[in-house]
Amino acid sequence: MDTGSPLLDRLIGRLTRLPGIGERSAQRIALHLLHAPAADSEELAGLLSETRARVGFCGRCGYYAEGPLCRICADPGRRAGVLCVVEQPVEVMSLERAGVYRGRYHVLGGVISPLDGVHPEDLSVEALVERIAREEIRELVLALSGGVEGETTALYLVERLRGLPLRLTRLARGLPVGVSLEYTDEATLQRAFEGRVELS
Amino acid sequence: MDTGSPLLDRLIGRLTRLPGIGERSAQRIALHLLHAPAADSEELAGLLSETRARVGFCGRCGYYAEGPLCRICADPGRRAGVLCVVEQPVEVMSLERAGVYRGRYHVLGGVISPLDGVHPEDLSVEALVERIAREEIRELVLALSGGVEGETTALYLVERLRGLPLRLTRLARGLPVGVSLEYTDEATLQRAFEGRVELS
Repeated sequence: MDTGSPLLDRLIGRLTRLPGIGERSAQRIALHLLHAPAADSEELAGLLSETRARVGFCGRCGYYAEGPLCRICADPGRRAGVLCVVEQPVEVMSLERAGVYRGRYHVLGGVISPLDGVHPEDLSVEALVERIAREEIRELVLALSGGVEGETTALYLVERLRGLPLRLTRLARGLPVGVSLEYTDEATLQRAFEGRVELS
Repeated sequence: MDTGSPLLDRLIGRLTRLPGIGERSAQRIALHLLHAPAADSEELAGLLSETRARVGFCGRCGYYAEGPLCRICADPGRRAGVLCVVEQPVEVMSLERAGVYRGRYHVLGGVISPLDGVHPEDLSVEALVERIAREEIRELVLALSGGVEGETTALYLVERLRGLPLRLTRLARGLPVGVSLEYTDEATLQRAFEGRVELS
């Protein structure tokens, strides 16, 4: 962009680096803010800065948290003894929105993908093993995406957890193959939960 | 949204109030920033705040400016004696991008629209009259949109400027380049017929 204002150019350029924001959208947003009260820009700037500074990851499950524990881990009303294993925090959000699961979560941080340099030790697998013992987990629901890497990760976990007194299930084949949990509708998520199957 | 983090909820909510940003886009942007280095959020926050604080409007033409004059008004290489009249600053950007005009601009700040409570005195018409005298303007190109309100505003300006030694023109109306007749609205087709030109 070349608006004649170097600052405006930089803001538009910075906005286009956000996901899903093209040049036109960035321009619309920047001009909208220029014409809106200064308090609007100040509020957004403050929220961006404060959110990044104060929102981190739950020390137990890896979901987003403002303190040491996320709201889900800190909630005594959650069903004990079961954990739902997901790849990323955003998938916890999808499952929570669907409201089909009342236990707690464990965020792996990814899936095994040797081609991308992601190996089991890059995921929070050992923390999961510790939680299973400490929290007396009796069922682990694997909610990994349906691709090859998700399958590989599921097989790895089956091997790693073999011998533990644990029911190991995965979400039913109702998840569309190759589509991230993040973009799965609530009805499909519910079917997937209801139809979860034994892995071992 | 209910992510479990009130700060994250507020950021997502604030982002959805930007033009063209829905709930999904807002979530993607917020999570992208959470997982990116904190410096990214700080940079964006700083630019938002600084741009809103330091970018204002040119005291002469009404386009965006970081100082008293915009870059176009401050540019001695611009053709003198001609002004292009637009409704909003964003239209200066479109014309500058097209690179088809080398004079300076005058931003009216809107068009006359009694239903929306916009009357001639709400627009920078008197400032335009003063500029015409001070800058010895000999041609005024009206680049207003083609609707009823644009027409009303053009007619008002013709009346208001009557008697001045001034050539008053408006941008040609007709078929957009590269657009099929099939997809052209009736009003545009009518203008195109009325303005048809001799081929030989």
